[in-house]
Amino acid sequence: MHQHKTTPESPIGIFDSGVGGLTVVRAIQSILPSERIIYFGDTARVPYGSKSQVTIRKYAQDDTSILMRYQPKMIIVACNTVSALALDVVRKTSGSIPVIGVLEAGAELAAGMTAIKRIGVIGTQATVCSNAYACAINDLDPDIEVYSKACPLFVPLAEEGFVDHPAAQLIAGEYLADFDERHIDTLVLGCTHYPILRRMIENTVGPGIAIIDSAEAVARRAKETLLERSLLNPSTATETPHLLVSDLPQKFSTLYRLFMGADMPDVELTDI
Amino acid sequence: MHQHKTTPESPIGIFDSGVGGLTVVRAIQSILPSERIIYFGDTARVPYGSKSQVTIRKYAQDDTSILMRYQPKMIIVACNTVSALALDVVRKTSGSIPVIGVLEAGAELAAGMTAIKRIGVIGTQATVCSNAYACAINDLDPDIEVYSKACPLFVPLAEEGFVDHPAAQLIAGEYLADFDERHIDTLVLGCTHYPILRRMIENTVGPGIAIIDSAEAVARRAKETLLERSLLNPSTATETPHLLVSDLPQKFSTLYRLFMGADMPDVELTDI
Repeated sequence: MHQHKTTPESPIGIFDSGVGGLTVVRAIQSILPSERIIYFGDTARVPYGSKSQVTIRKYAQDDTSILMRYQPKMIIVACNTVSALALDVVRKTSGSIPVIGVLEAGAELAAGMTAIKRIGVIGTQATVCSNAYACAINDLDPDIEVYSKACPLFVPLAEEGFVDHPAAQLIAGEYLADFDERHIDTLVLGCTHYPILRRMIENTVGPGIAIIDSAEAVARRAKETLLERSLLNPSTATETPHLLVSDLPQKFSTLYRLFMGADMPDVELTDI
Repeated sequence: MHQHKTTPESPIGIFDSGVGGLTVVRAIQSILPSERIIYFGDTARVPYGSKSQVTIRKYAQDDTSILMRYQPKMIIVACNTVSALALDVVRKTSGSIPVIGVLEAGAELAAGMTAIKRIGVIGTQATVCSNAYACAINDLDPDIEVYSKACPLFVPLAEEGFVDHPAAQLIAGEYLADFDERHIDTLVLGCTHYPILRRMIENTVGPGIAIIDSAEAVARRAKETLLERSLLNPSTATETPHLLVSDLPQKFSTLYRLFMGADMPDVELTDI
């Protein structure tokens, strides 16, 4: 277990299995532009969502250890799969600093949003099988019914840029058909890749269903936690995130642009 | 570098990034039923085809080292991506035993098959970008024109069982459209997952194009090599392959059935 002194000037550590967590970086930058961000994406071992709990927990420990080298004041788990299956591992590995999972933040937002207490959740195989969203939502309100559906093809479709392709629409139609008879009013995008497909998902489920993007929820929760602990960075400078990845594949810059809407800055390659 | 004494009774080591290489196991079993097979699938780090050459070469070394513990008489690289980018790493790590790559075997079969000297190749991003199929084919016959196309969604579609789904047909139509004007007569399935989608791919490219499945080609080449070196196993017993994986995700048994057409036997989990 690590122990280090944190100050308001310490960075916020964020990690994900790959590039999807950049949606969280973007949301944090938008409401906390003066915070220093260290992002680690485990691009050498992505994806996590189709792997076993044992492996996901081992990877979560590695990822946290990499961020701890930078003595962060907080860790944000941008990966829904790790949030669902290994948040305790991250907490144990990071010692006494606050740890915020994207799943808890999304669950809280969804529980506050549903008027008829019926929520749908879509995510990876591992996230959906863990039942973690239903548990987190029912911890807040045991009367809410939660219906989950794994959508394994959404990540590769998003990464291929098939965001409104007829094939993607057919697949979305099939994955999301179950929700028709569930009469939900709120749908959680339980994977950081899914906001890329948001418009298509909205069109598929139809109007009247609120879409929850956990990236914004986790950013707001991070701000509250830093405020409570007097750890907000007082600087007025705008900070550029420091990006670490375990692999730099050819398509990385394309993916960066897809998730961040900007050209790729310098990226540091690190061994796991 | 490992050195060990091999005998006809020594096993054949086969590895792949995941489960796709089981198509090679199946082909070997079919023509060499008395050979002992050790198969390693790197299911904890799959896929390789979207990763960088540096990472693929590191993984190839790890995978070979795992197989070398079993003192094999031969190594078969069932992964097209590793065959394309890291066959030299496998050879260096395995010492003096023969190493056969699925890519070389497929290239040889395709070069012998094309009448009009026009071959198409489909594979992962990494395999296609390496240009390794074109090099291997042109080493055999410099007059053959080779056209390659990366089909990144084929692996997730195969693993999801979308083998003749309308969405898969739309995606195949888009990926394979380029070949229409190339007037090829031979198409190499340059990824061990693609045989799962073979019928759909055949229907998409239309009649008159020979489909090359490298699994059968590599099995025949393995038999020839063992014969030349007097290393064929003289046993008449039928051997069950020994399966090693680095992760055992929930869907493993479903994937095993998809690739092997049989129920999953005992599988050993190994750390990388």
